Amino acid sequence: MQFNGREYKAFAGAFNTPEYTSTLVARRGAAPIPHRGNKVTTLDAVMELIQDGDTISYPHYYRTGDQGLQMVVDTLRRHGKRGIILYGNAFFDNADPWLIDAFADGTLAGLYGNPYRMVGGRILKGEIRPWVSVGVSHGNRVRKLQTGEVHVKMAFGPVPMADRYGNASGCMGKPEHYCGPLGLFVADTEYADYTCLLAGTVSDKTLGPASLSMENVDFVVPMETPGLAEAIGSGTLDLERIRANKFNSVVAANVTRVMQAADVIQPDVNFQVGSGAGLIVLDNIRTMLRERSICANFSIGGITSLHQDMFDEGLVKILMHGQLFEPSERVVKSLLNDARHIDIPTGYYASVAVKDCLVNQLDVAVLSALEIDREFNVNTVCANGRIIGGIGGGQDVAAGAELTIMFLPLATGKDGKGFPKVVDKVYTRTTPGEVVDVVVTEEYAALNPASKSSYRQAITDNAAKAGLTLISMDELHEKSMAKAAEFGTLPVKQETTDEVLHLIEWRDGTVLDTINAPVPRK
Amino acid sequence: MQFNGREYKAFAGAFNTPEYTSTLVARRGAAPIPHRGNKVTTLDAVMELIQDGDTISYPHYYRTGDQGLQMVVDTLRRHGKRGIILYGNAFFDNADPWLIDAFADGTLAGLYGNPYRMVGGRILKGEIRPWVSVGVSHGNRVRKLQTGEVHVKMAFGPVPMADRYGNASGCMGKPEHYCGPLGLFVADTEYADYTCLLAGTVSDKTLGPASLSMENVDFVVPMETPGLAEAIGSGTLDLERIRANKFNSVVAANVTRVMQAADVIQPDVNFQVGSGAGLIVLDNIRTMLRERSICANFSIGGITSLHQDMFDEGLVKILMHGQLFEPSERVVKSLLNDARHIDIPTGYYASVAVKDCLVNQLDVAVLSALEIDREFNVNTVCANGRIIGGIGGGQDVAAGAELTIMFLPLATGKDGKGFPKVVDKVYTRTTPGEVVDVVVTEEYAALNPASKSSYRQAITDNAAKAGLTLISMDELHEKSMAKAAEFGTLPVKQETTDEVLHLIEWRDGTVLDTINAPVPRK
Repeated sequence: MQFNGREYKAFAGAFNTPEYTSTLVARRGAAPIPHRGNKVTTLDAVMELIQDGDTISYPHYYRTGDQGLQMVVDTLRRHGKRGIILYGNAFFDNADPWLIDAFADGTLAGLYGNPYRMVGGRILKGEIRPWVSVGVSHGNRVRKLQTGEVHVKMAFGPVPMADRYGNASGCMGKPEHYCGPLGLFVADTEYADYTCLLAGTVSDKTLGPASLSMENVDFVVPMETPGLAEAIGSGTLDLERIRANKFNSVVAANVTRVMQAADVIQPDVNFQVGSGAGLIVLDNIRTMLRERSICANFSIGGITSLHQDMFDEGLVKILMHGQLFEPSERVVKSLLNDARHIDIPTGYYASVAVKDCLVNQLDVAVLSALEIDREFNVNTVCANGRIIGGIGGGQDVAAGAELTIMFLPLATGKDGKGFPKVVDKVYTRTTPGEVVDVVVTEEYAALNPASKSSYRQAITDNAAKAGLTLISMDELHEKSMAKAAEFGTLPVKQETTDEVLHLIEWRDGTVLDTINAPVPRK
Repeated sequence: MQFNGREYKAFAGAFNTPEYTSTLVARRGAAPIPHRGNKVTTLDAVMELIQDGDTISYPHYYRTGDQGLQMVVDTLRRHGKRGIILYGNAFFDNADPWLIDAFADGTLAGLYGNPYRMVGGRILKGEIRPWVSVGVSHGNRVRKLQTGEVHVKMAFGPVPMADRYGNASGCMGKPEHYCGPLGLFVADTEYADYTCLLAGTVSDKTLGPASLSMENVDFVVPMETPGLAEAIGSGTLDLERIRANKFNSVVAANVTRVMQAADVIQPDVNFQVGSGAGLIVLDNIRTMLRERSICANFSIGGITSLHQDMFDEGLVKILMHGQLFEPSERVVKSLLNDARHIDIPTGYYASVAVKDCLVNQLDVAVLSALEIDREFNVNTVCANGRIIGGIGGGQDVAAGAELTIMFLPLATGKDGKGFPKVVDKVYTRTTPGEVVDVVVTEEYAALNPASKSSYRQAITDNAAKAGLTLISMDELHEKSMAKAAEFGTLPVKQETTDEVLHLIEWRDGTVLDTINAPVPRK
């Protein structure tokens, strides 16, 4: 199987072959011996190093507030560069139209990362052909760099503040530029031939503590606005608004019941809980920790004020994250000053190329899904031909956690149409069912009979007592179909051709699924 | 030029060729995909991976308090391993006699690192022939690992506390095991095929913040006593005792005058000051910072209580170090809890294989020497055929700092013998004169006419005003000879054969000097 000229293996299992071995590839060091240098330069000057067809990389932590990538693409174009491959992570609506337009004019020729909504829509229209865009998990993105599957010529990264030697921090500089951790960009700086920081503030004095090391940085380019802190947070962080949504409340209560049946909230528990209804679950974990007068060991993943509250209250001993969903002054200052609030490289979080990663120490993880099928396969990316979500750390966390809980509504409805969410077969498989232990909906939950979780028996034994109604996945599917039918007519599956336009890799680099070109509807 | 079967280049200059380029070599990653593993095992079990002739590594931060290395060597012997090469850093009297005895019985066949006193004496008796022991600076030790000049099969490292996943800290566990930073061992864990921690305490829960990452650790071996904190500190940390020594007082005053003439103590100054008389200099820097109501940016190098005092007083913004000379509860807790008190990897401190390192940002460094010659070449290692000192970070710091001040007595005397310290030619060249700016003795100082320091003119202009008597190096040499003659008869130079027994590498891996076999005196 070939994509973008590279040979791929098909997904063969979440933990794949026993003979899996990784080598962290060689990388470029110093030339010549560094001696009291100053790395400050211009974007124009660094363009000299970039050849047509080279791969550049860029991190996504500023999310919709990013300002640097467009400037990089514009500069590439202005310098007449052709056929550049962009090793990104996630592309949001703010990257439209200029990102895909750069394919039309030949500046770009390839794209790695999760293209959301408008960008994804244009990819599924075939606008970056013949390239097949590649969706990767956070851990996989680092693994590909570490193992040399993708070789980056120059890593570009926006940072609030850097010193002229190349050390950088996401928690210093102008508050309107704060992005918090820079962990998503660490591997880029390590494995790219060259690293170029785009810095909102450049310091003449060495800064510390630094999240990016000058050991891996070649150039520092001052930039008025690398990114805007205010555009990082999504709209899903307001707990009261989340509670007001009935689905969120009821599904969070059910997720909490699963945790209670499993009795997983013990002293020194390690957990990751997502946003949306996950925030209510987080608040419930807070209550459980308080009531038992116990303390969790670590919490990872996108960090919010509620995580910070729990840290400040002593309910969570260690907060670790490589991206921040809420770069408020308070959270940023804690990250900068509290020794147990830690900016972690994404490889430490989730790469399978290194000798261990944090997701493997999770006792419980709560993740959301777009749809799940009877084999417990999860889809977080593509709703019947529209790319509306990404992979994020979902694959990594689901594979690593001892108890992986997926939640979603049974069905949704709109304009006389009903959409079942527990389906016969997911439109796109983004996480394999074997790493999903429990699926939770508003009223019912299903325990994966193939689950290897040590909590499985406890959940079975204690479900009823916890107020949890466990049914089989087939029954859940039937209920989902029935509920969708109540909303209205069921959708017709978007048919596709054989042409692959987007690839979903499993975290080890095998092909988990593809998103193919849609057949135009009549 | 060949040593230990490897081709060497001669030293050609402190910053060598413009075409110097480094590649950080590939390294072993995970096999198979890590998933909720437990790395706790026994030393006997890991021996299976070690083949005859393999290289193992070991860090020296426990100094004379180390307990782990002897256990590793004993275990190698018990398992019948032969011809093992030990990539160490410094070997003190506590390694005698068992370390060199392991050569006699064939367990060990090679040694990297600085062998002090008793161990050095036995090497100069030819006891590890045909191996030539190799002295390396802190930065060079990391560079050799990074560039693959030395490939380590298994890195062994003593740590106060590790978790069962392989994260480790020098500031947790039992206080009697505290060693502070683990920065000296980071590159070993990164570049060795396998890493085995010897842990005084093993935690079942993930620890954080960690100084060593589980990403690079394969095995955790519980050990009653990895090392003893109390044996780390040298006897040279008591400021009152240091002041009581007249040489220390007068030379420190003169060093301070150099700094005053240079006017180097400015806001955000970066400095490294050693132990001994250096501690008085440090106390003088403290006074200067206080009097001007200014704050230094960073201080690096072996950290003492006095550094901690200055940090706590707000006179130094950032403390960074990869080894601790005084692992007191107070300093260790600050290192663990204060975000600007940072455990740095030694590569970040001083490797020339990476794109920048901290020593390059030093404004001023104060270092001691055994002897210095008319070309400003420095000897910190070998006193007329006896190895009594090491290289440490001296080469790196001298090369990096904008103003490098070396201090030493003009001459010393004992039992009717006089020893000149400013000599015609150093017995062993351990730092080249081109990176030394000023040499300071009790009464006089000499400015290197080849100094490229930006402070050179200021020192010349302001020396007299600062009370500093600058003379030429030839004059300093004459005064040194005269002073030595006052003490008694001058030593006869230890003659040597052509046989090289110990090698002094410059920080880029070229041969700076050799220590040859002594010709027995009649």
